[in-house]
Amino acid sequence: MPGDTRRLGEFELIHELFAPLAAPGAFGLTDDAAIISPPAGSDVVVTKDMMVSGVHFLPTDPPDLVARKLLRVNLSDLAAMGAIPHGYALGLSLPHQIDDAWLRAFAAGLAADQREFGIALLGGDTTSTPGPLTLSLTAFGLARAGRLLRRSGARPGDVVFVTGTIGDAALGLRALRGEVDDPDGFLASRYRLPLPRLALGATLPDIASAGLDVSDGLVADLGHLCAVSGVGAVIDATLVPMSSQVLRALDREPALIEAVLGGGDDYELVFSVPPANIGELERHASGVDLAVTRIGSIEAGEGVRVIDGTGRDITPRTTGFRHR
Amino acid sequence: MPGDTRRLGEFELIHELFAPLAAPGAFGLTDDAAIISPPAGSDVVVTKDMMVSGVHFLPTDPPDLVARKLLRVNLSDLAAMGAIPHGYALGLSLPHQIDDAWLRAFAAGLAADQREFGIALLGGDTTSTPGPLTLSLTAFGLARAGRLLRRSGARPGDVVFVTGTIGDAALGLRALRGEVDDPDGFLASRYRLPLPRLALGATLPDIASAGLDVSDGLVADLGHLCAVSGVGAVIDATLVPMSSQVLRALDREPALIEAVLGGGDDYELVFSVPPANIGELERHASGVDLAVTRIGSIEAGEGVRVIDGTGRDITPRTTGFRHR
Repeated sequence: MPGDTRRLGEFELIHELFAPLAAPGAFGLTDDAAIISPPAGSDVVVTKDMMVSGVHFLPTDPPDLVARKLLRVNLSDLAAMGAIPHGYALGLSLPHQIDDAWLRAFAAGLAADQREFGIALLGGDTTSTPGPLTLSLTAFGLARAGRLLRRSGARPGDVVFVTGTIGDAALGLRALRGEVDDPDGFLASRYRLPLPRLALGATLPDIASAGLDVSDGLVADLGHLCAVSGVGAVIDATLVPMSSQVLRALDREPALIEAVLGGGDDYELVFSVPPANIGELERHASGVDLAVTRIGSIEAGEGVRVIDGTGRDITPRTTGFRHR
Repeated sequence: MPGDTRRLGEFELIHELFAPLAAPGAFGLTDDAAIISPPAGSDVVVTKDMMVSGVHFLPTDPPDLVARKLLRVNLSDLAAMGAIPHGYALGLSLPHQIDDAWLRAFAAGLAADQREFGIALLGGDTTSTPGPLTLSLTAFGLARAGRLLRRSGARPGDVVFVTGTIGDAALGLRALRGEVDDPDGFLASRYRLPLPRLALGATLPDIASAGLDVSDGLVADLGHLCAVSGVGAVIDATLVPMSSQVLRALDREPALIEAVLGGGDDYELVFSVPPANIGELERHASGVDLAVTRIGSIEAGEGVRVIDGTGRDITPRTTGFRHR
C-alpha cells in the first residue's frame, strides 16, 4: 500500500519463510485468500488475539517463544470452546528493528507449534509500522455443529473445576522482572509458553455446563462466566491448585496470593460441572493425564467470592482487569 | 493481559459500541470465540489485511472512512476469489490519543458497511499500544466448494479485463497530499472508499481463468497473476479505462501515467478470460451495471509488458511494490 516502506527483500524473505508453513487450503500463500473446507455437520470456530511488543511480551523475549505464545493463547481459546485446531491467519506489523534473524526464529517457533498442535498457516498480511512490533492471529477450529462449550449455562449447584495449576504465569512475569525468585525457570516458562488444554477441552462440551480459559486471572475469568450465566460462585482459596514453585514463593511473601488469584496468563481452563457428570470428567482428565481440581461451586446471585479454609471472605480487591 | 494500560471504561465502551454489530454466531461477543456454520457443500474463504495509521491511512482521516476502508479492502479480496461476504473478526491496537468520539465514529462506519454488504462482526480483540493505531481485520466469505477464482489458471490467448477505472486511488492519495488537483473530491473518495466488486466477482469463477484485485497497482498485480499462472501478459496503456478526472490530470502532467499504471489501492478486479467466455462476461457485467474493459492478453513467457497505441514498450520502471 502507499507509504509502506518495508524493503522488498524483506517481503520476499517472509514469503520464503512462511510458504513452507502453509496449509493445503492456503494455495502456497499465493492467492488473495485461503479456504477452509469443513466436514459436513461441522462449525468453524473463530478466535482472534493480538499481541503488542512492550505490552503483551518483552521486546527481548526470544522470537520463537513469542510466536509460540501468540499461537497458544489462541489455541487456548479454541480449547475453551471445545474445538479442534485447524489453522490460522497471521498479521505482522514490523518495525525496522526486526531483522532477518528475528523473522527466521519467529517462523521456526511457528513451525514447531504447528507440528505439536496439528495446525497450519492459512494466510495473512505483513505491513511495516513506525511503532512497536504488533502481532495479530486469527485461529480456526472445527467442532461438531452446535456442540460448543460456552460461558453461559452454569447453574447453582454446579461444581467449579480448574485444570493444572494457577498463578505460575503471574509469578513468572514477576520473575522475568526480577521481583520473584525462579531458580529453575519454571515460572518464567509457564508465562512464556502456555499449554492450551485442547485434549480435555474437546471433551468438555458433553460434560461441563460452562467454561473458559484463564487469561485475565482466575477470579476475573470465573466472574465473566458468572456474568454471562447469570449466577455467582464461591471458591475456596485453599483448594486452588498451585505448583510447588508458587507455594514456595507464597511462603516467602504471602501477599503474592493476590497475584496468584488475580493475575492472568495461566491459560488453564475453569469450568462448571453438574454433579452428575463429575465421574465422567475425572475419567476423561485421567485419560489425558491432566489434573483437574474442584475449587468451589456455582450459587445463585452474582460475582465471585473467595473464602479461606475457615469460610472467611478473602476476595482480592484486584480481580484482574478487562482487556477485551 | 499484564501491562495493558487501557482504562477499564474504554473497554466497556468498546463492548457497548460493538455488541450491536455482532453476528448471531458471535454470542453477543461474550465468549472466547465465535462460530461460522457454513451450508453443506460450502467452503469458508478467509482473508486478512492490516492497516497502520501513518502507513496505510492518514491519522487525520475520518474514523468512519477508516473503518469502511478496512472492511472494504478485505471484501475486495473476497470479491477477487468469487466469495460471498459472511462476517469478520476485528483487532484494534489503540494508542491513548484515540478517544470515545473516534471509537463511536469508527463503529458507525462499520455499521454502515455491514448494512451495505450484508456482513456482521464475529469477534476480535482490543489491546492498547504505545505506537500508532493498528487495525487488523479477518474477513470470512462463503463459496460453493471448489468454486473459487484463483491467481493460477491464466493461459496464453486469454483476454485480460479490468473492472471500473484505474488510477483514481493513486491520484487520490496525491490529491490528499495536495500534489494533484481534485476539485470535486472524486479522486480522494476513490482512495478512501474502495468499491469491492462483489457482484461481478461472484460470477467470475465460472467465466474467468484467473483473477485478483488491484491493490498493489495494475501492472504489479497482473504480474502476480502471471507469476502464479506461469505466463506473461501484454497490456495496451491506451485501452486502460480511466476516469475523466484522471484523464484531466494526465493532460496537465503526462508523467502521472506511471502512478496510474503502477500505483495501488484501486480495488478493481483484473482477470483473464478465455475468448469463448467473453460474451457471458459481458452479459454478467451488464447485469450488475459495471464496466469491464479489455486491456490486453495473456501470452507465453513471463512478466507484464505495457505497450502504447503504436506497440512501443512503455512498461513503467516502478510497477508497484510488494506489501504481502
